[in-house]
Amino acid sequence: MRVGFIGLGRMGAGMAANLLAAGHELIVYNRTPGKAASLSARGAQVASTIAEACRGDVVITMVANDDALSGIAFGGGGLIAHCRPECTHVSMSTISIELSARLTAAHVAAQQQFVAAPVFGRPDAAAAAKLFIVAAGTRAAVDRCEPLFSNLGQRTFYLGAEPAAANLVKLSGNFLIASVIESLAEALALIGKAGIDQRAYLELLTSTLFNAPVYRNYGALIVEQQYEPAGFAAALGLKDIRLALAAGDALRVPLPLASLLRDRFLALLAQGGEALDWSAIARLAASDAGQGRAGSQ
Amino acid sequence: MRVGFIGLGRMGAGMAANLLAAGHELIVYNRTPGKAASLSARGAQVASTIAEACRGDVVITMVANDDALSGIAFGGGGLIAHCRPECTHVSMSTISIELSARLTAAHVAAQQQFVAAPVFGRPDAAAAAKLFIVAAGTRAAVDRCEPLFSNLGQRTFYLGAEPAAANLVKLSGNFLIASVIESLAEALALIGKAGIDQRAYLELLTSTLFNAPVYRNYGALIVEQQYEPAGFAAALGLKDIRLALAAGDALRVPLPLASLLRDRFLALLAQGGEALDWSAIARLAASDAGQGRAGSQ
Amino acid sequence: MRVGFIGLGRMGAGMAANLLAAGHELIVYNRTPGKAASLSARGAQVASTIAEACRGDVVITMVANDDALSGIAFGGGGLIAHCRPECTHVSMSTISIELSARLTAAHVAAQQQFVAAPVFGRPDAAAAAKLFIVAAGTRAAVDRCEPLFSNLGQRTFYLGAEPAAANLVKLSGNFLIASVIESLAEALALIGKAGIDQRAYLELLTSTLFNAPVYRNYGALIVEQQYEPAGFAAALGLKDIRLALAAGDALRVPLPLASLLRDRFLALLAQGGEALDWSAIARLAASDAGQGRAGSQ
Amino acid sequence: MRVGFIGLGRMGAGMAANLLAAGHELIVYNRTPGKAASLSARGAQVASTIAEACRGDVVITMVANDDALSGIAFGGGGLIAHCRPECTHVSMSTISIELSARLTAAHVAAQQQFVAAPVFGRPDAAAAAKLFIVAAGTRAAVDRCEPLFSNLGQRTFYLGAEPAAANLVKLSGNFLIASVIESLAEALALIGKAGIDQRAYLELLTSTLFNAPVYRNYGALIVEQQYEPAGFAAALGLKDIRLALAAGDALRVPLPLASLLRDRFLALLAQGGEALDWSAIARLAASDAGQGRAGSQ
Repeated sequence: MRVGFIGLGRMGAGMAANLLAAGHELIVYNRTPGKAASLSARGAQVASTIAEACRGDVVITMVANDDALSGIAFGGGGLIAHCRPECTHVSMSTISIELSARLTAAHVAAQQQFVAAPVFGRPDAAAAAKLFIVAAGTRAAVDRCEPLFSNLGQRTFYLGAEPAAANLVKLSGNFLIASVIESLAEALALIGKAGIDQRAYLELLTSTLFNAPVYRNYGALIVEQQYEPAGFAAALGLKDIRLALAAGDALRVPLPLASLLRDRFLALLAQGGEALDWSAIARLAASDAGQGRAGSQ
Repeated sequence: MRVGFIGLGRMGAGMAANLLAAGHELIVYNRTPGKAASLSARGAQVASTIAEACRGDVVITMVANDDALSGIAFGGGGLIAHCRPECTHVSMSTISIELSARLTAAHVAAQQQFVAAPVFGRPDAAAAAKLFIVAAGTRAAVDRCEPLFSNLGQRTFYLGAEPAAANLVKLSGNFLIASVIESLAEALALIGKAGIDQRAYLELLTSTLFNAPVYRNYGALIVEQQYEPAGFAAALGLKDIRLALAAGDALRVPLPLASLLRDRFLALLAQGGEALDWSAIARLAASDAGQGRAGSQ
Repeated sequence: MRVGFIGLGRMGAGMAANLLAAGHELIVYNRTPGKAASLSARGAQVASTIAEACRGDVVITMVANDDALSGIAFGGGGLIAHCRPECTHVSMSTISIELSARLTAAHVAAQQQFVAAPVFGRPDAAAAAKLFIVAAGTRAAVDRCEPLFSNLGQRTFYLGAEPAAANLVKLSGNFLIASVIESLAEALALIGKAGIDQRAYLELLTSTLFNAPVYRNYGALIVEQQYEPAGFAAALGLKDIRLALAAGDALRVPLPLASLLRDRFLALLAQGGEALDWSAIARLAASDAGQGRAGSQ
Repeated sequence: MRVGFIGLGRMGAGMAANLLAAGHELIVYNRTPGKAASLSARGAQVASTIAEACRGDVVITMVANDDALSGIAFGGGGLIAHCRPECTHVSMSTISIELSARLTAAHVAAQQQFVAAPVFGRPDAAAAAKLFIVAAGTRAAVDRCEPLFSNLGQRTFYLGAEPAAANLVKLSGNFLIASVIESLAEALALIGKAGIDQRAYLELLTSTLFNAPVYRNYGALIVEQQYEPAGFAAALGLKDIRLALAAGDALRVPLPLASLLRDRFLALLAQGGEALDWSAIARLAASDAGQGRAGSQ
């Protein structure tokens, strides 16, 4: 398949490489051109404008946030203006349900297909084609993308015809992960201040009731205070919790635990933690307990 | 071994049966005598006073809360007055760290051994000898209990010489479970109000990042609104969160997520939910979102 | 002075009448034309377009929210396009600091003056010219408006050259009022459930430490459950807390009490309370305590 | 009247002096005897045991907390054992509703009168006889104390026959004050980080909607970061919020704002702020916003 791929960041670079390896014809575009070099060496065409990347039958976007995707999609030089009718735009970024709805409407107006297909998984999972993909859009459009999804991830979940549903599921999933981080942070602060060995405690938890990678991985980061380099930066964590709260606001669903998380991320960023892994909010539970300092290493 | 066993509630009855089946000589006591009948039929001696149950080399207590255990342990007719020196009291109930410390001191003064060994697992796990046991006390005392623990659970974790450490770990574990309930409740309220199928959503979560029984089991209870009969009653959930907060207060560890949970349990009980399963706090996230009624079925 | 006045809602109508009574030449505009009739009868000119209202030396806008003001200010038929250079736009609405900054930049580009002058006071205070006015903008521009402010309110506070500062102060003030409501709601729920007379309790509070109109007025509304008609609607309360949180987000200031308030307003609206007075969030503290029903009268 | 007075701390010393000045016959007792010297010089009898202080027709207790009052009231050397029948014990301390109920029952059993009469006011108000007194107990018992109350305070509120009601009102009042502190702290953190002058802002607030001493006094402490010497220590603030939450727990009234306050006080104490004025919780809102350090001056 001929695939346009826009966004070669830590996630997108690995995903694009997997599509290329699977034999697809790839036209890649990145705002900062240098990122495309290694893909070019392996046969990808490098587009110098968004318009060129729109020559694909499918155009995948994998960018950092709403602003980045809006800038790519709308306007005279944008994706909606340049894609052919019947072209399918697959947005795999974590974006707001509000932008997802706007994109849906704009693509319908342009007689194009729109699929929202955000993913669960960190950069290593993207590189290993082990992502979980949450897809929503018309059945036909999602079916057309299925060969691509099978090259990118280990499993795809179909969420129905409304693209925004996939985005909401992604946001809610990140909310659940951040909730795990906060709950572990509080429990570890309590345990640690009582003088109990945190490593033994975590081993106990994750070999019994909390035998899941999300507890093992984030628990280890917190116990070891290993917040750099960031697998997923705190600034992005704040963004996603903010979007989950915005969805709750639009739907009139109070989310008190998400509110707590938002305040944690804001405090972390106010204290200079923007580039740390998002699990660094655990520092706040510890510093509130008089253990260590939130803003320092 | 000769074992006194005090407390034949939903947990204790199954545990006592397992000890009996393993060949131990059992002297059982329950405040309400009728509960001992089926154990008696299988060979247990039935004590009519706490003092009689204290003839064991080890006396296990498995009761509902601090008040129940205080009533059994202290006073002229109590366990501390009647156990022989060198007898080991194994408290398997979920109690406060403050009571655990008081019991430790009292047993030391009476030249008795004290082991705190609270468990993770619901009544079905107790009956199936699949509990996880968290034990703390002197190494010698815990070692002496090991044959019993291996008949009661699938694994024992040793937390060190300070009995209260085991109680704190147990409380923190229940806090973590309640945090899972609250986070799922909020996510499901959001997803449900957006019109996304909650069952499909839960299947997605639990076959990807949240592939753990605690998410599967509580998620299903929430989605199906199956809050009766209670596996673990909301009133007990409130008790345990209250004890976790009391431990945080004593150690000066703020626990904002536990505070949120406390308020949830209080609201559920204020609305008549005392006897529902503790996962029924999920009703509150739903009713706050205008979905269903907290107080009704 | 010749004054354009846009927005004749419950606040604006009284304010415009006061300017008219003080002898100013008034050109009024309202999206729904009927609202201007009584002002017209007293000598106001009625504009049929925003452009006509822009003939004033000063143009005051007093509308419901960001969207309304954006619609009036920007675009081909808007205020910025039609005001003369040197005309002063006085925005008295409660709006976001982000919109305030955008308006500041747009007016500078058009060589116009911009003053943000939000007010404290309910419609009765607007009608009685008893508002408190919080003004920010260049000293010269605010000075030019002073004669108008003295006809509209009992006192003006000058917050400096940056218009957004006035908007932030207004938002923070509404946050403080909502905090009073929530704290009274919780205290009254506690007192009431203990069987203590709520009226006597409120009288005690407001004749001792809390001897201020904000406690007396909101306390009475809560005790009497007098939530209709709304002096200030819950939907507007949510809007203002949302804007305060957005300001906190932009400045990286966690506001946990504002987060709690946001969740209260969302729950109230989810249960159909959109048009009630914003003090109706007090119902939630009561219903969480099992006292009355949040959604009913 | 012959009055026993137990507890000569910062509040009690001033109160006892006022009773002495008004001509009452005073028998004072303090755990640390030195505190009685200046009262003795002015004619007070100094008791060397609690029993001696119980010779009064009325015995007033004014001590730090539940433990102190329990120690004085119960046991062989205590107040209940030594007061004559018909003697009236007036507890003016801030204590739990649970202890108030226990004292009520014990005094009834001993045919003594019990009045709970906690006060609002700091040590300067105690010295100036400007306290507000919240009294509950049988009408006859409270009436008998009225001459004393009029020497101690500016106004007495009668809360009915149930002593615990007065204690609950006192606790709820302190909760309301702490809520004012937290709301001001968040607003000032926001305003300050936006670069707006905090003093001007506070002047604006307290000359308009928040024209009450509680806003003026605590606002000034926060703006000036004047947390020493403590008018009311943070450790006592935590105690009172804890008691308010305990009352809410007993009555099943969730108090989310009180939960937030509890976590603030715990964090302040964890960071060494025990002896600071309770308004020092405002440091936490500031440090969470990256402004200053919670633990330092």
